Amino acid sequence: MRLSEGVEWAVHSCTLLAALPEGRALGPAELAAYFDVPKAYLAKQLQALSRAGILSATRGPSGGYRLARPTDKITLCDIVVTVEGPGTCFRCQEIRRRGPTGQPRRCYPEPCGIARAMWAAERVYLTELGKVTLAKLIAEAADEVSDEQQAATRRWLDRVA
Amino acid sequence: MRLSEGVEWAVHSCTLLAALPEGRALGPAELAAYFDVPKAYLAKQLQALSRAGILSATRGPSGGYRLARPTDKITLCDIVVTVEGPGTCFRCQEIRRRGPTGQPRRCYPEPCGIARAMWAAERVYLTELGKVTLAKLIAEAADEVSDEQQAATRRWLDRVA
Repeated sequence: MRLSEGVEWAVHSCTLLAALPEGRALGPAELAAYFDVPKAYLAKQLQALSRAGILSATRGPSGGYRLARPTDKITLCDIVVTVEGPGTCFRCQEIRRRGPTGQPRRCYPEPCGIARAMWAAERVYLTELGKVTLAKLIAEAADEVSDEQQAATRRWLDRVA
Repeated sequence: MRLSEGVEWAVHSCTLLAALPEGRALGPAELAAYFDVPKAYLAKQLQALSRAGILSATRGPSGGYRLARPTDKITLCDIVVTVEGPGTCFRCQEIRRRGPTGQPRRCYPEPCGIARAMWAAERVYLTELGKVTLAKLIAEAADEVSDEQQAATRRWLDRVA
């Protein structure tokens, strides 16, 4: 089981967008340059985040993306679900019904207990991710990110955003 | 994020193996036939489960696999980790170090907070799966699986195992 690289890109993009001065925005090209990741694929993640109401897009020559909500209203769960798309990690193929002992459909009124247990664990995972807000990640980073990195990011935002 | 089909196959195979009479075993061909899944791919999962000490392999003409441990000592976590292989779902590519504001390695003494939060949620997911034993799944299934299916499985095991 592996999350797509886009999750890391999307979360980092959101934390950078949170640092934007009022009225500024960053486009896919700038964000891709900042993180040195492929622009086309990052653009897809950004569009998805925009459709999900996590980012808002502004048009025009200085257009781009900004966070659409306060950082305490955006969680890792929101971002992971947006980037990974709908659907559970465990996809029940109902193999219990197949093969020589398979019975008519009416003999399986409930989802398989294996699938139910797998899905219950996924809900716990997403709940856990839902407890982690961008605000929390940013507050932790403020203590941990080196002064050099913070200064370099400020200079870059002043120049680019 | 999606788990491989092999997880469903492996868990169902283990529950079927738990129903084997003493001294009997089932090979990849029989298990693949029972669930109507591709033998070659199922065989890989069974070998992995054997290497992980979840199944034991017996040789000879009536050889095959049996559970290597009691059903209350085998969990969904054991099986998922075995089938999916090592490594976290979230793979940190350290994109925070890249691009025009990236700093020397010494500026990043700790793993990124985003990665730490993602990994913490994964640990909670696996812990949750670790609470679900085969014994529990089998006990639930005993109440839920239709009489027709249970009888068909017993007949099939009598004939094949």
